[in-house]
Amino acid sequence: MDWGTSNLRCWAMSADDQVLGEAQSDRGMASLLPEEFETALLDCIAPWLGDGPPVRVIACGMVGARQGWREAPYSIAPCPPHSARARIEVACRDRRVAMCIVGGVAQHTPCDVMRGEETQIAGLLADLPEFDGVACLPGTHCKWVRIAEGQIRHFHTFMTGELFNLLATRSVLRFSVTSEAWDEAAFLAAVAEAAARPETVPGLLFPLRAASLLGDVAPSTARARLSGLLIGGELAAARDLWQATPVVMIGADRLARAYCAAAAALGGNVTLRDSTALTLAGLARARALAADPS
Amino acid sequence: MDWGTSNLRCWAMSADDQVLGEAQSDRGMASLLPEEFETALLDCIAPWLGDGPPVRVIACGMVGARQGWREAPYSIAPCPPHSARARIEVACRDRRVAMCIVGGVAQHTPCDVMRGEETQIAGLLADLPEFDGVACLPGTHCKWVRIAEGQIRHFHTFMTGELFNLLATRSVLRFSVTSEAWDEAAFLAAVAEAAARPETVPGLLFPLRAASLLGDVAPSTARARLSGLLIGGELAAARDLWQATPVVMIGADRLARAYCAAAAALGGNVTLRDSTALTLAGLARARALAADPS
Repeated sequence: MDWGTSNLRCWAMSADDQVLGEAQSDRGMASLLPEEFETALLDCIAPWLGDGPPVRVIACGMVGARQGWREAPYSIAPCPPHSARARIEVACRDRRVAMCIVGGVAQHTPCDVMRGEETQIAGLLADLPEFDGVACLPGTHCKWVRIAEGQIRHFHTFMTGELFNLLATRSVLRFSVTSEAWDEAAFLAAVAEAAARPETVPGLLFPLRAASLLGDVAPSTARARLSGLLIGGELAAARDLWQATPVVMIGADRLARAYCAAAAALGGNVTLRDSTALTLAGLARARALAADPS
Repeated sequence: MDWGTSNLRCWAMSADDQVLGEAQSDRGMASLLPEEFETALLDCIAPWLGDGPPVRVIACGMVGARQGWREAPYSIAPCPPHSARARIEVACRDRRVAMCIVGGVAQHTPCDVMRGEETQIAGLLADLPEFDGVACLPGTHCKWVRIAEGQIRHFHTFMTGELFNLLATRSVLRFSVTSEAWDEAAFLAAVAEAAARPETVPGLLFPLRAASLLGDVAPSTARARLSGLLIGGELAAARDLWQATPVVMIGADRLARAYCAAAAALGGNVTLRDSTALTLAGLARARALAADPS
């Protein structure tokens, strides 16, 4: 299961990694006290539990954070995405469950952390063990992960998604980006502008508000331009990571497709991969590792 | 009076511009419907009203915005900070008051707007009519204003203050910048780092959170570093405005002093001026203009 900050998502899997069932809920880590996790889990998976031996449950994500169910240690990059040392068993009151949480990956120079994304990387490496390139995982906190020799070599997190949401819903710009429609041309123009001159981006935000006050810009254009300025700035800052390397963009939603379009427009060699499939493949790898922790 | 988004501040002034009294309240523009402004005004100034001819009230700021009491038109830069054409009379039910609102200044290329800051510029020009340089007005939305020949030539607004507040109170960084203490050395180091490589700033934000998770940074250091990264990025983006020009920093609070220290550290020629004194001088100029609109 993937148990993140806002949601949890469980899959029942057969011994040969076929998906037998799926369940999800909005009882993410941030909404639960430590003693509430087991109930939240059982509410999702009870229909799958029987009278046989305990069912092995493997969780990745923020459930293993300090504020989660129980803290799972980080592996320190460079390292494989999963390791037996960074996995903890969690005792459950319900004897039908044998629960473990896989730990995240941390980096000291520069400081960075991930919880959950390492499992998608494990899934990617299950499919492409020789992969030598970069994985990009867009989201609230977008990760760029350099992968080689079956390891996470180093990685870098950008708060671009969170920044966009704060600006679009809490700042003075919220009055100017009210449309959910998408202006792809404005997005790509802003990406190009920001990537060419990233130092100008801080000065291009308030003009979005001023332009709408002066009647010069549609909300859908302003919204796409805000997104493009921030993603273009991120691509400029991450350029050394993706410029001369194959990039696998891991996602399925509009955001991942926007990152793909932006990176491709700047000359990136980008392939899109479905994040759910990679999460499942990564959890299957974690199960195999749990059975044989050598 | 200065009637902004969050507050209003009134001064009773004699014919020769001496301050006779002061009043303020938190009934800023954002908290009032159009029909509520007059009452909010009278609650502040009623003690100063008598039986003689109507008292002239001159207001600057967001009270003249579209969502304010009544919209006052913008002057379009380049222009003097105040003009008779951008001033509107507002009819009051209370006949003891003769109310007017001075308009703001807008710019079309690039789009930008100000309401209130033009009055501080008018105050600066009342004192230094020949000023040829840049005024910087730090705040939620920091303005850099190029001034020459008694005019606002052009200006540029940065959302740095609002961005800092959102990141420090609403983002994942809020857990890492909990101290109100100030680490000046960390601030100046971050200013220098961001100004030298502004394109790296988007990638330096999440590491503040990771560093505090990994135990490597004190909250006061993280807070000052966040501020320094954002202000350093702004100074890099505004470099063409301030680099070879005298800069008057208009403010009195910690933020204005931080901008002064940052700009001086980067080689700026900066003088700090008190914003209240300039607002008063600017309102006095607006009154003179109202009496003689030639």
